Amino acid sequence: MTYNFLLDLALILLCTKVLGLLTRNFKMPQVVGALLAGVILGPAVLNVLSDKDFITKISEIGVIVLMFTAGMETDIKELKKTGKASFIIALCGVLVPLGGGFLLAYLFNGPDMSEGATASLFLQNMFIGVILTATSVSITVETLKEMGKLNTRAGNAILGAAIIDDILGIIALTIITSMADPTVQIGIVLLKVVAFFVFAGVAGFVFFLFFRKLQNHYHKDMRRFVILAFVFCLVISYCAEEFFGVADITGAFIAGLIISNTERAPYIASRFETLSYTLISPVFFASIGLKMTMPEMTPHIIIFSILLMIIAVLTKIIGCGLGAKICKFGTRESIQVGVGMISRGEVALIVATKGAALGLMSNMFMGPVILTVVVTTVIAPILLKIAFASRKNGKGGGEDQKIEETELVKNYNIAMRGEDTNEEEEIPAGARS
Amino acid sequence: MTYNFLLDLALILLCTKVLGLLTRNFKMPQVVGALLAGVILGPAVLNVLSDKDFITKISEIGVIVLMFTAGMETDIKELKKTGKASFIIALCGVLVPLGGGFLLAYLFNGPDMSEGATASLFLQNMFIGVILTATSVSITVETLKEMGKLNTRAGNAILGAAIIDDILGIIALTIITSMADPTVQIGIVLLKVVAFFVFAGVAGFVFFLFFRKLQNHYHKDMRRFVILAFVFCLVISYCAEEFFGVADITGAFIAGLIISNTERAPYIASRFETLSYTLISPVFFASIGLKMTMPEMTPHIIIFSILLMIIAVLTKIIGCGLGAKICKFGTRESIQVGVGMISRGEVALIVATKGAALGLMSNMFMGPVILTVVVTTVIAPILLKIAFASRKNGKGGGEDQKIEETELVKNYNIAMRGEDTNEEEEIPAGARS
Repeated sequence: MTYNFLLDLALILLCTKVLGLLTRNFKMPQVVGALLAGVILGPAVLNVLSDKDFITKISEIGVIVLMFTAGMETDIKELKKTGKASFIIALCGVLVPLGGGFLLAYLFNGPDMSEGATASLFLQNMFIGVILTATSVSITVETLKEMGKLNTRAGNAILGAAIIDDILGIIALTIITSMADPTVQIGIVLLKVVAFFVFAGVAGFVFFLFFRKLQNHYHKDMRRFVILAFVFCLVISYCAEEFFGVADITGAFIAGLIISNTERAPYIASRFETLSYTLISPVFFASIGLKMTMPEMTPHIIIFSILLMIIAVLTKIIGCGLGAKICKFGTRESIQVGVGMISRGEVALIVATKGAALGLMSNMFMGPVILTVVVTTVIAPILLKIAFASRKNGKGGGEDQKIEETELVKNYNIAMRGEDTNEEEEIPAGARS
Repeated sequence: MTYNFLLDLALILLCTKVLGLLTRNFKMPQVVGALLAGVILGPAVLNVLSDKDFITKISEIGVIVLMFTAGMETDIKELKKTGKASFIIALCGVLVPLGGGFLLAYLFNGPDMSEGATASLFLQNMFIGVILTATSVSITVETLKEMGKLNTRAGNAILGAAIIDDILGIIALTIITSMADPTVQIGIVLLKVVAFFVFAGVAGFVFFLFFRKLQNHYHKDMRRFVILAFVFCLVISYCAEEFFGVADITGAFIAGLIISNTERAPYIASRFETLSYTLISPVFFASIGLKMTMPEMTPHIIIFSILLMIIAVLTKIIGCGLGAKICKFGTRESIQVGVGMISRGEVALIVATKGAALGLMSNMFMGPVILTVVVTTVIAPILLKIAFASRKNGKGGGEDQKIEETELVKNYNIAMRGEDTNEEEEIPAGARS
């Protein structure tokens, strides 16, 4: 019996927190710092983590919890309020990066780079595209709020499109992960995917009714709801893999979506936040770092990394901008929408991890993906400020079109206020001194 | 890659919660139900858990967190208020069960029963005694409160003695686990144990000063304190094993004691409660269940189990009762004190798990230990009611000596109110509907 896992965990918690706080001081999201901590502790730099098995086991459950949380944060009730424009923006914003990522991988990827990947080259290249579809708008929204630009047509389009982007991204992920097994025909795969969504819908509806009955019964003792939600998430994730050949993280996300419709959602989400920040998130970032090894950063991979970042930024601007244009947004507004969608977050990393585990992605690409997540997240607020600010210099005519605070913005603010409280919780009153 | 760990975890969470709620409905602590769930899911009954490696890895970190929490709940500042009587009661209440457990094991244990144990028979037998020293008074205190007997001399003596019992128990555990390595001399072992306590004291003091400085600086963003406390716990636990040959759970307990002195303790403890009930506690109980196998329940072991329960109950009554008698308590009061100390809780299980991992205890004894924990916990309130109620039937003269509510009781109530709130948390105000 060794005790290295104690030291490993201590190092992981300390480094992700310290670097996370540092990056936050520089007005960057903590995910960037946590990722850096993972890379620094991993084989690429210090290589100080010794109990890799422990980290892997915890992060297995970790990705499930993180996708479950992501699902809970996607407010599906908002879908109705987003409208057709958001849908077209999201669709173009998924298809163009998917194509761009695929093309880039097609040019660079070869059998010599497929170390650890077992799927066909076509699927591998497609998977790089799928990773690029993910969007994380929380940093964008924070920036827009700061600039007082959230209540603009562009701001609202971004909020709406991000919700739909999540759903479309998860569908793309589900289809491609289901095709990882080369023995299964594509027709069967699609049938199974549809069957899974039907199953999840029915199971979710039954669970929702049961949950609502229970929540009308018990108004104290909230722990049972947290446990019940977690059990539901685990069962759906398990069924996805076992009976439908669908990725478990898809199941976890769908379970989160269903829970987000219940009255207990804010409480449950806050408890999973605690589980996440005390153990699961830091270990997940460490496990990402473990997958990035230095010797693999050949000139070929470095060039690929740089191009991947550029493609990641450009395809979102072009894709979402195109979508906005189609919906009769002005050129300036279209660019604003596009720029608002470029940042990628944890979801891209979770998807990449899953792909690597399924043989859909070579471990060599983990480095480029990490770099892309970091760069798009860091660059998003800067580009956003440029896109919104240029008009003020008197180059164009008039101000950005201000609109009334919409339901979408209101609900986003309510949801985020809960999270902020969590992040910066005050000392509870009446605590023993 | 298999996904059985998802189903395993779902089953564990569901069963421990459902059975825990069931036992609570019967006015028994949830630990009894959770333990039963572990045994039922394990090889002794259903044997449905397939990813044992996953459960083991999570429960490795689990015992650390549980002992850390136990340390945080032990209010060391109360020690000063407990007085000499509590100390003598606790001391006798540790020594008599230690001797009783040793004697019983001495009569039953032989080389044929040492499957999995590597330490000398003497140490193995002594370890059974150490397991019996643990006391969990929360169920006792709840019962006394219900009867309105907490503010009696006996009630106060129980509260005080339980705190000292925890400390003495951890010292006994520390010494015996340090001796598990047969190549080390006893003199060196004791020296190392003393050196560890000195180290922990100094490190704890330095950490405490640093922590206080930080907490005066930051009054929002509480997460960093939770992470910092956890890192401290992990580092002390690691150092205990690595440099002093002392059990990691001792380190975790001491770290908890130190944190309990900080202003942020209630907040930190509540966050660890969440980590505990959403993942760690249920998995820990499942891991206990995994260690209990049916074929090992031979007639010999069954007789041993029954005797162990009887010894567990009698030695606490006799030991603590004797201590009370020495301190000039009346016979009736002495019996009340003794009965108040018989219930064992999670700590006895954690100690047993640790002993099994170190080769200090054969896996064959896990069944008897589980049964003893369950029986002592279930029987404690019943015996307590008998011990306090008989006088009412007019057999003796006068009522139980009522006293003013002491600081000890006040503080216990404050600490427990926090826990109750946690357990039966209300829906947060202003939650989205």
